[in-house]
Amino acid sequence: MDRKLKVGIIGAGRIGRVHTLSLKNFVPEVEIKAVSDICFDAAQKLAEQNRIPYAYKDYKKILLDPEIDAVLVCSSTDTHAQISIEAAEAGKHIFCEKPIDLNVDKVKSVLEAVNKANVKLQVGFNRRFDHDFKKIKELIDSGELGELHIVKITSRDPEPPSPEYVKVSGGMFLDMSIHDFDMARYLTDGEVKEIYVAADCRIDPAIGEVGDVDTAVITLRMEDGTICVIDNSRQAVYGYDQRIEVFGSKGQAEVQNDTPSTASWSTAEGVFKEKPKYFFLERYMDSFADEMKSFVDVVINDKEPPVTGVDGLVTIEIGLAAKKSHEEGRPIKL
Amino acid sequence: MDRKLKVGIIGAGRIGRVHTLSLKNFVPEVEIKAVSDICFDAAQKLAEQNRIPYAYKDYKKILLDPEIDAVLVCSSTDTHAQISIEAAEAGKHIFCEKPIDLNVDKVKSVLEAVNKANVKLQVGFNRRFDHDFKKIKELIDSGELGELHIVKITSRDPEPPSPEYVKVSGGMFLDMSIHDFDMARYLTDGEVKEIYVAADCRIDPAIGEVGDVDTAVITLRMEDGTICVIDNSRQAVYGYDQRIEVFGSKGQAEVQNDTPSTASWSTAEGVFKEKPKYFFLERYMDSFADEMKSFVDVVINDKEPPVTGVDGLVTIEIGLAAKKSHEEGRPIKL
Amino acid sequence: MDRKLKVGIIGAGRIGRVHTLSLKNFVPEVEIKAVSDICFDAAQKLAEQNRIPYAYKDYKKILLDPEIDAVLVCSSTDTHAQISIEAAEAGKHIFCEKPIDLNVDKVKSVLEAVNKANVKLQVGFNRRFDHDFKKIKELIDSGELGELHIVKITSRDPEPPSPEYVKVSGGMFLDMSIHDFDMARYLTDGEVKEIYVAADCRIDPAIGEVGDVDTAVITLRMEDGTICVIDNSRQAVYGYDQRIEVFGSKGQAEVQNDTPSTASWSTAEGVFKEKPKYFFLERYMDSFADEMKSFVDVVINDKEPPVTGVDGLVTIEIGLAAKKSHEEGRPIKL
Amino acid sequence: MDRKLKVGIIGAGRIGRVHTLSLKNFVPEVEIKAVSDICFDAAQKLAEQNRIPYAYKDYKKILLDPEIDAVLVCSSTDTHAQISIEAAEAGKHIFCEKPIDLNVDKVKSVLEAVNKANVKLQVGFNRRFDHDFKKIKELIDSGELGELHIVKITSRDPEPPSPEYVKVSGGMFLDMSIHDFDMARYLTDGEVKEIYVAADCRIDPAIGEVGDVDTAVITLRMEDGTICVIDNSRQAVYGYDQRIEVFGSKGQAEVQNDTPSTASWSTAEGVFKEKPKYFFLERYMDSFADEMKSFVDVVINDKEPPVTGVDGLVTIEIGLAAKKSHEEGRPIKL
Repeated sequence: MDRKLKVGIIGAGRIGRVHTLSLKNFVPEVEIKAVSDICFDAAQKLAEQNRIPYAYKDYKKILLDPEIDAVLVCSSTDTHAQISIEAAEAGKHIFCEKPIDLNVDKVKSVLEAVNKANVKLQVGFNRRFDHDFKKIKELIDSGELGELHIVKITSRDPEPPSPEYVKVSGGMFLDMSIHDFDMARYLTDGEVKEIYVAADCRIDPAIGEVGDVDTAVITLRMEDGTICVIDNSRQAVYGYDQRIEVFGSKGQAEVQNDTPSTASWSTAEGVFKEKPKYFFLERYMDSFADEMKSFVDVVINDKEPPVTGVDGLVTIEIGLAAKKSHEEGRPIKL
Repeated sequence: MDRKLKVGIIGAGRIGRVHTLSLKNFVPEVEIKAVSDICFDAAQKLAEQNRIPYAYKDYKKILLDPEIDAVLVCSSTDTHAQISIEAAEAGKHIFCEKPIDLNVDKVKSVLEAVNKANVKLQVGFNRRFDHDFKKIKELIDSGELGELHIVKITSRDPEPPSPEYVKVSGGMFLDMSIHDFDMARYLTDGEVKEIYVAADCRIDPAIGEVGDVDTAVITLRMEDGTICVIDNSRQAVYGYDQRIEVFGSKGQAEVQNDTPSTASWSTAEGVFKEKPKYFFLERYMDSFADEMKSFVDVVINDKEPPVTGVDGLVTIEIGLAAKKSHEEGRPIKL
Repeated sequence: MDRKLKVGIIGAGRIGRVHTLSLKNFVPEVEIKAVSDICFDAAQKLAEQNRIPYAYKDYKKILLDPEIDAVLVCSSTDTHAQISIEAAEAGKHIFCEKPIDLNVDKVKSVLEAVNKANVKLQVGFNRRFDHDFKKIKELIDSGELGELHIVKITSRDPEPPSPEYVKVSGGMFLDMSIHDFDMARYLTDGEVKEIYVAADCRIDPAIGEVGDVDTAVITLRMEDGTICVIDNSRQAVYGYDQRIEVFGSKGQAEVQNDTPSTASWSTAEGVFKEKPKYFFLERYMDSFADEMKSFVDVVINDKEPPVTGVDGLVTIEIGLAAKKSHEEGRPIKL
Repeated sequence: MDRKLKVGIIGAGRIGRVHTLSLKNFVPEVEIKAVSDICFDAAQKLAEQNRIPYAYKDYKKILLDPEIDAVLVCSSTDTHAQISIEAAEAGKHIFCEKPIDLNVDKVKSVLEAVNKANVKLQVGFNRRFDHDFKKIKELIDSGELGELHIVKITSRDPEPPSPEYVKVSGGMFLDMSIHDFDMARYLTDGEVKEIYVAADCRIDPAIGEVGDVDTAVITLRMEDGTICVIDNSRQAVYGYDQRIEVFGSKGQAEVQNDTPSTASWSTAEGVFKEKPKYFFLERYMDSFADEMKSFVDVVINDKEPPVTGVDGLVTIEIGLAAKKSHEEGRPIKL
């Protein structure tokens, strides 16, 4: 490719800003040509701070720009599907934040549009690019751990979302656990055949009032016999707790939380260590950059996306089965 | 008590020897007067090595000795109940290895006999006396972790049992997981209301052929809302893996495996640490000593046993529910 | 400051490239206008890769450019002093890599020129900006550790330099230990009053043949009574070993090596962890970025440099005293 | 040996009690026949608690008992030499607590008496039997670390001794550092050729007033070129700090402090770990038992003691050289 890849950012909120910085600082092959946000001020501000030539209120202006090769869909969740379909129809490659949509049929429509237009679609499961989890994956793939028997994923947020957010987000399984479903599929390289959920509202009654849970232990039986267990909490008061352990016929591997420093200190009061990095922006910042590098590499070098539309679809299906398991108090087959 | 407590050991196998050494080395208040084993040679050898005055083939001789205050039932599992009942009827205090019996009714008979005779009965869940798990319990009891939400117990053996042993032991849930059921009850100070098992035979097909599993993830919903999750394997090739993590509204606590030393070393090949202590005799040796101190204290000072007959009964009930959940593929209420 | 700070890079070698990338990616207040290198190709290549408008063979062209506010002196060590003096005379603010010079008088000339011209001079002791060591410093400054009694610095390279490099670098004390002398002064906020060196050539006889050592334990007695001990090796086969421990009247603090991931894994062969990040570029990459941010902040906001010319001078004096102690086999007062 | 080894304990203070319990609980080949103490009550109490047949005020009664094979010299330091000489003359094998004496000539007299009588003499450097330090030694001896270059010993007490004790103990180098001198010789399997001490009184001025120090960094140059560095403090407020690191041409090894449990816990306030075991009785309890097993094995099986009289002598010489180095401010050759 002789010229730089031209990219448009749709949605100038938190994750849009993160991807903008990643592209600007770490992906020299890219030029961000335009940014849009229904809140035009946000688009304009992001454009100014990053010397992006164009800022729009309407994302369609980005789609109409023939120079733009690819778009990042970072708008609110309920707009992901519609924008992605239009982007595909406009012949743009697409990086779409997770979830594509909470409705399986809508997600399937996106996949169809993408297939028809023959554009790339990569979904925003950034944790696959995390240095710690990649190391676990490497150890599995090397065969050093043998056949996988058990996978344990701990995923706890530092603070609960507002009940308002809970309502629009699809609930904990589709908003939070979905990352862990993706991780289970990624690590085992296989599909879930059955799911069982033990969950409750233990932290914030307001979350229960809008019909959601905040604490869960989720058992996934994979097709190859691996048993995955995910434990989720919306509030780990000590910070963002993101750990994984895998156990196989030849060994075990685990990763701990990343911390701001390796310091430990001892006084008459006790022995202390650093708390985990606070939340996903701190913990996963490097993975966001690697995710962008990956997407740009996919587009420029015509590669298969490492996180596909199918990954986006299947995780939604698992999330919906999780809800059902919780509601009916029994394991659900997929 | 002016004189020493006189104790008889019934069963001179591995665990009988462990308790004999613990009593001899660490419990000066005790005198072991006799040991019995259906294999008389084993009894005689243990007696000689430890200057125990009497060795018998028949345990009834111990029960008939009016000087003996208490017995340790360390014989094979299928004799625990009968011997315990006779011991109670003979007015002996009883320390009985786990499980009391695999049959709930038989266990209940033991409890009735014990109650009727008004003797002490302590059951051999030694892990309650482990320094690491006691620390976890202290942290919970101190309130520092707030209300418990999630308890995670990892319990993996270094090598699988023989299929012959599997057949008589009652299977993994009643032989191995039973320790974890006790730990869940101990840590949460509550009862299981529902259990769900995802289990399989992944390690040794011979175990599957005799109808048992060797790999399991078990979800326990406790009456107070805590969710406990146990992961079991019959073969962790790196050694005995015994860890616990608890998570609550105010914090989290965890313990790692004990190792022979704190050494780590680094070469061109990598960075290395010690493997876990090999198996239960290495890992739990101190807990066995504390268990004996506890039992002797219970008898001498007329205290409530820290592990009661009810603890022995309920864990059997959980184990049987685990089997049922595995067989029927659904959660089982208790 | 309305406009961006305009900077020239003198020296397009490894460290020149590192600083160029740091400025470009992380310091938006800066515009790199020109780069020079006596190897013009290197200058040109760096300019092209980073869209730097001008590339020169002769650094004087940078000094003559009235638009350029500040220069980074990243050329070979023996040119640092001369270029810095000329840069000061040209009214440029200066970031100078360590060491300013191996000759104390020359360093003093630089300091005089800088003072006379009233420009900023910051010296390249990047480790002060390392996240781990900053945490140690914060713990000291917070008073949590009380009065400092002992400081221990481990600083070991992964592989020895070539004997050619050893000859021009001033030897281990002035090339490698100098970072540790700076760290000792930084952490204790004080001056060395006496130094004692136990050193030898253990790794590469060729290093001994050119009159240098490769293994050392250096004791520094600080004016306030703190005793610092540095251990240096030119070859830690497991990687770059950079750790610090401080011990005071109220407690202790330490940092471990940074690793590529937090993974540990266990197999039948043992328990493994990651090796340290390989060398200074991997380990200290973030500190280089923070160093640049700091320098730009110093210039733009007219602040006192956090690493001054005096820091550059005193560490050279300590390095020369270290050589003398080694040669004479006795402690040397400063 | 058909019968048990008969042992007499001379000195019923703290360390006498420790050895008594070790022998009783862990060394079945031994029978403790008598105990003596100039405070007869202490002897009598220890005898009663441990069913030792005889208690004396005068140690000579032990030496006169022809049945007694070996004695443990656990009396006050200033009596070690005299009692050991008499014990040798009485044909008893000797375990003598460290130091044998603070006077080199007296120590030599003991060694002569022992040689002449052809009895065993083992000196009480218990740390050689510590599980952690033995692991370090094993790693060195296996060759896995290559040639040793640097050995670092951290040895810090939890609280300073009384000035009264300091006066009679010979000072920090002969009382406390002596263990570390022994460890340096043990790990490197070699002799010190030069010592340099940087020391001060930083903790308790009363210690300085009686002419001693409480904080030190000691550099030992070994004959084989290894450089050992010991850091000592009389007061680590967080507990007994006993760590070792060794560094060689092929790798590095280190051990951390032992802790009461492996627990770590995290709350909103921070991440916590256990403090080190409090002091030498807690930390080194297992090593005391292994030390006794070793001594009894030496006597029964006519082996070379693992810690000889020469080890006792040489460490005193190093301690005296340490004092001289501190007083004269220069390295001292041995």
